[in-house]
Amino acid sequence: MEFSSKLLEKAVNEMSQLPGIGKRTALRLMLHLLRQPEDQTVQLAKALESMRLDIKFCKSCNNISDKEVCEICANPHRTKEIICVVEDIRDVMAIENTSSFKGLYHVLGGKISPMDGIGPNELNIQPLVEKVKQGIVKELIFALGSTMEGDTTNFYIYRQIQDYNVTTSTIARGISVGNELEYTDEITLGRSIINRIPFEASLKS
Amino acid sequence: MEFSSKLLEKAVNEMSQLPGIGKRTALRLMLHLLRQPEDQTVQLAKALESMRLDIKFCKSCNNISDKEVCEICANPHRTKEIICVVEDIRDVMAIENTSSFKGLYHVLGGKISPMDGIGPNELNIQPLVEKVKQGIVKELIFALGSTMEGDTTNFYIYRQIQDYNVTTSTIARGISVGNELEYTDEITLGRSIINRIPFEASLKS
Ligand SMILES: [Zn+2]
Ligand SMILES: [Zn+2]
Repeated sequence: MEFSSKLLEKAVNEMSQLPGIGKRTALRLMLHLLRQPEDQTVQLAKALESMRLDIKFCKSCNNISDKEVCEICANPHRTKEIICVVEDIRDVMAIENTSSFKGLYHVLGGKISPMDGIGPNELNIQPLVEKVKQGIVKELIFALGSTMEGDTTNFYIYRQIQDYNVTTSTIARGISVGNELEYTDEITLGRSIINRIPFEASLKS
Repeated sequence: MEFSSKLLEKAVNEMSQLPGIGKRTALRLMLHLLRQPEDQTVQLAKALESMRLDIKFCKSCNNISDKEVCEICANPHRTKEIICVVEDIRDVMAIENTSSFKGLYHVLGGKISPMDGIGPNELNIQPLVEKVKQGIVKELIFALGSTMEGDTTNFYIYRQIQDYNVTTSTIARGISVGNELEYTDEITLGRSIINRIPFEASLKS
């Protein structure tokens, strides 16, 4: 692509570094912004920059937050005895949306995937094991979805904590295999948490 | 969507104002940026802002430019006698890419579309008519694509300038009807400019 403006070229190049956005799409988006009032682009730029520079990850659960400890962890009405283990904040958002879970979360930041070079040390697993060792947690609910990576991650965590006094469960398999949690409808997802099954039983199925 | 961070929510909301980007996609893009080094987001934000605030539109042809007059208009090796009339800068980029045109462009900024409330006055048509009246232009090539809006716009301009001493032509119909110019392959597009046909002949076909 030959651009008649370096400013446009730079904006298209930066935008097309985002996953799923090619140069053609980026150019279409930039031409759209140029037709809108300046303020729209300025607001977008400011929002991106403050998000990246000022956002925090909850010290306790690793959820995205504007404070050191997220609103869920800081809520005294939620039980610290049950922790739902999820891949990323989209899963937290999906489960919160069902209003069926009143425990806390633990956000791993990914799943174990040797193919992608993601091992246990790349994930937020050790702090979860530490929480279990402290003895407050009575139950871990694995909610990583039923992909091979999800199963591997569940099993890895299970082995780290099986000698401690904690129940492990997994959300019901009504959730279709390989589907991302966030795409599951609210009712199915809500039920799958309420009707969760012991993790050991899921290993045999 | 319930967000655990106002900063994230604001960024997702701003991003999802772009056409074709829903909230779900915007959230995916933001989570991607949060996993990348801070500098990537800062560069993106800066590029967007400078593009919107500092970009200029060529005084002569309305092409996007970093200067008052674009490089094409300022190039002494290009003839001012032939003007190719296009909808937007993507068409300029597509035609420049063929290296088959050595005249100048005139960017209308859209096509006449009563359905969308776009009349002749919303477009950069009058300055084109003025250029023709000045007598330097010998030929106008209409390159708006063969949609109804393109045909309407061509015909509107044709009626404004038909009493002046200027030839009008249209790019060959080998370009499939309703296709955007930018999606036409280079060879077809290049040929269609070289083998352009008189505009009056196109009216009869
Ligand atoms: Zn938290
Ligand atoms: Zn120009």
